[in-house]
Amino acid sequence: MKYIFGKWQVEKMKNNECVRLYNPLVHCITNYVTVNDVANVVLACGGSPIMADDIDEVAEITAISNVLVLNIGTLNQRTVASMIKAGKVANQKGIPVVLDPVGAGASSLRNATTKKLLEEIKFTVIRGNLSEVSFIAGLTATTRGVDSSEVDNKNNASMVARKTAEKYHCVVAITGAVDIISDGIKIAKIANGVPQMSKITGTGCMLSGIIGAYVSTSVNTFDAVVSAVASMAIAGEIAYQKYKNVGTGSLRIGIMDAISVMNDEMIKSKGNICYE
Amino acid sequence: MKYIFGKWQVEKMKNNECVRLYNPLVHCITNYVTVNDVANVVLACGGSPIMADDIDEVAEITAISNVLVLNIGTLNQRTVASMIKAGKVANQKGIPVVLDPVGAGASSLRNATTKKLLEEIKFTVIRGNLSEVSFIAGLTATTRGVDSSEVDNKNNASMVARKTAEKYHCVVAITGAVDIISDGIKIAKIANGVPQMSKITGTGCMLSGIIGAYVSTSVNTFDAVVSAVASMAIAGEIAYQKYKNVGTGSLRIGIMDAISVMNDEMIKSKGNICYE
Amino acid sequence: MKYIFGKWQVEKMKNNECVRLYNPLVHCITNYVTVNDVANVVLACGGSPIMADDIDEVAEITAISNVLVLNIGTLNQRTVASMIKAGKVANQKGIPVVLDPVGAGASSLRNATTKKLLEEIKFTVIRGNLSEVSFIAGLTATTRGVDSSEVDNKNNASMVARKTAEKYHCVVAITGAVDIISDGIKIAKIANGVPQMSKITGTGCMLSGIIGAYVSTSVNTFDAVVSAVASMAIAGEIAYQKYKNVGTGSLRIGIMDAISVMNDEMIKSKGNICYE
Repeated sequence: MKYIFGKWQVEKMKNNECVRLYNPLVHCITNYVTVNDVANVVLACGGSPIMADDIDEVAEITAISNVLVLNIGTLNQRTVASMIKAGKVANQKGIPVVLDPVGAGASSLRNATTKKLLEEIKFTVIRGNLSEVSFIAGLTATTRGVDSSEVDNKNNASMVARKTAEKYHCVVAITGAVDIISDGIKIAKIANGVPQMSKITGTGCMLSGIIGAYVSTSVNTFDAVVSAVASMAIAGEIAYQKYKNVGTGSLRIGIMDAISVMNDEMIKSKGNICYE
Repeated sequence: MKYIFGKWQVEKMKNNECVRLYNPLVHCITNYVTVNDVANVVLACGGSPIMADDIDEVAEITAISNVLVLNIGTLNQRTVASMIKAGKVANQKGIPVVLDPVGAGASSLRNATTKKLLEEIKFTVIRGNLSEVSFIAGLTATTRGVDSSEVDNKNNASMVARKTAEKYHCVVAITGAVDIISDGIKIAKIANGVPQMSKITGTGCMLSGIIGAYVSTSVNTFDAVVSAVASMAIAGEIAYQKYKNVGTGSLRIGIMDAISVMNDEMIKSKGNICYE
Repeated sequence: MKYIFGKWQVEKMKNNECVRLYNPLVHCITNYVTVNDVANVVLACGGSPIMADDIDEVAEITAISNVLVLNIGTLNQRTVASMIKAGKVANQKGIPVVLDPVGAGASSLRNATTKKLLEEIKFTVIRGNLSEVSFIAGLTATTRGVDSSEVDNKNNASMVARKTAEKYHCVVAITGAVDIISDGIKIAKIANGVPQMSKITGTGCMLSGIIGAYVSTSVNTFDAVVSAVASMAIAGEIAYQKYKNVGTGSLRIGIMDAISVMNDEMIKSKGNICYE
């Protein structure tokens, strides 16, 4: 069954409104490259970010938060232990956990850490590019430069998303030219966004923060992830429309601007989403 | 006695001019979330930032600096030791020290660290929100979501600022919808700024950096803090006026722009400051 | 012999085109103050940044990269060991290495670290301000506030650049009001840029990232460094022309915008470069 974003969906998807209404506290243990953008984008979409990574406080911080976002972008031994401790607290308390496995597949440390995190923590959502998620799915992939065409033809992105979601009982989002979201059964494809977004560091990290905020205030994780992913892609389109002749510095600011004024109506009207 | 920003003040407050003239070196041991904004805003107001946190160099760096700014935003054991070492050097050499107790009240580690810093270091200025400063004052407060109304009614912000300033023999700034500055006797209230500033991460951290620059070049700490706090709030108004229909990405850039062209004349003419 | 950027050079310098064509992977071990700007500027000039500093993965990451950029801006013991490990791998594999000795001369730790890095690693390019490079050259200089006039008159920037390049068998770029590049024999001087660039943190760090990208895709390191340095200075001019009446927040975004649309034609036509 394949249908275009329909009436039923229109009624259901009020995810952004919920984020702005409930202003969830989003605990991020994330990399130092894009941490400022992640904090700002969580604020822009309606949440409250809290960045804390010391092992002596993560348990307390997670316990007062509405969601935990783990991002291994600038992995180091100190914060891996903090991630596991925070993740366990979240699992005990029923707080959703988002994994952004940045660069999984690129080094033994990242591979081992990703595996360890997946063993020790139950994730609600995993968001990565095709290469990172393929690694998690146990498929062969080399991280750098991997895109759909380079992965074994049998392993298309939809299959990888569905398989990973099934394996880890979570919702998986593979972002790329077309974004794929699966809960192991359903699949949503989002054909928004512009290629120029890849010329800005951290759009993936930012999206993982937004996903955290959306998921923490929704009863339907799959729907919340679809809305969050669509909101980022649409923000990229809006910003590109405005700044395409200016440059990537302005494009980045434009994406933040667009996220800060995003609402469910925009996601519904501009979202190019189909389900299969 | 209560009077509006008057002639006497007009003569006294040349704080921004002094910063631009003397270009003070501002040593910041700060969090990795907003560190870039802090560095840029220190430059924008006329200072020179230096960010160094390794225990093997902080003593030397503080010794050549004009002011030390300690911010516990992303607290960890490594930098706490550096903060104490740097703070002691500053105290020995008569270099002013600013404390930004980010999230004090939110975790045992932050509480213990804040207490330790206050025991080991003599601060010139403490800047935080009402919740953080209430914690320092020894009042009951939970950090997340605290605002004036949630703190015990008897503990209004002016009282908290005055009490904390008295207790620690320093100038205290509590920033919020109305900013309160006290030296333990005098109180200044600043009714500038816009609520949208809270949708950008780091406006508090940035202000603490600016306060450092202002205080380091002034003979009157209270006055310098009032000017610094007012400059940030006014910058928020200017940026909001320009970008209110655009979004928070542009608002953030607009604040930086406004700080970079700020001068004492603007602070005087736009400052909505009263003393009691 | 002294000649203005001539026909021969016009033919040779296709450095930016090469970066955009080959999209080199630029491994940066850098400071947490400007790391986001460095990542974004590497993307903007056509490269792909990868920021990784844990000792357990730097060898692998460097091995898959096209260039390694080491920046000691927020030096700490943990990352110094990573820098040395990564540098040795790069040397073994013939991967170029760029050193940005931020604050060399400012503390014993920085001095000792800079010396150690220079002993253990063979650098392809060293980029710093006059004070930092003078320290490397073994000349007396105090880092803070040093500019040409303050260094011993005999030690002008050209001499310092040439001497350092000769000593370390590399290309040296001293950036300032006039930028100097030397390979130990040739000297190029670039008279582009605007003083207001010094009001933004990280223009030096960003340039070191760009140099990494340019050098990794060029057969002529000297030429690649000249192009990279000129591109940054020209970007500053373009951004200043656009935002001079706005402020430094916009200036910073404008520099990123200009780098993202920079090409060799612009470098050639706007570059005020002379060789001696």
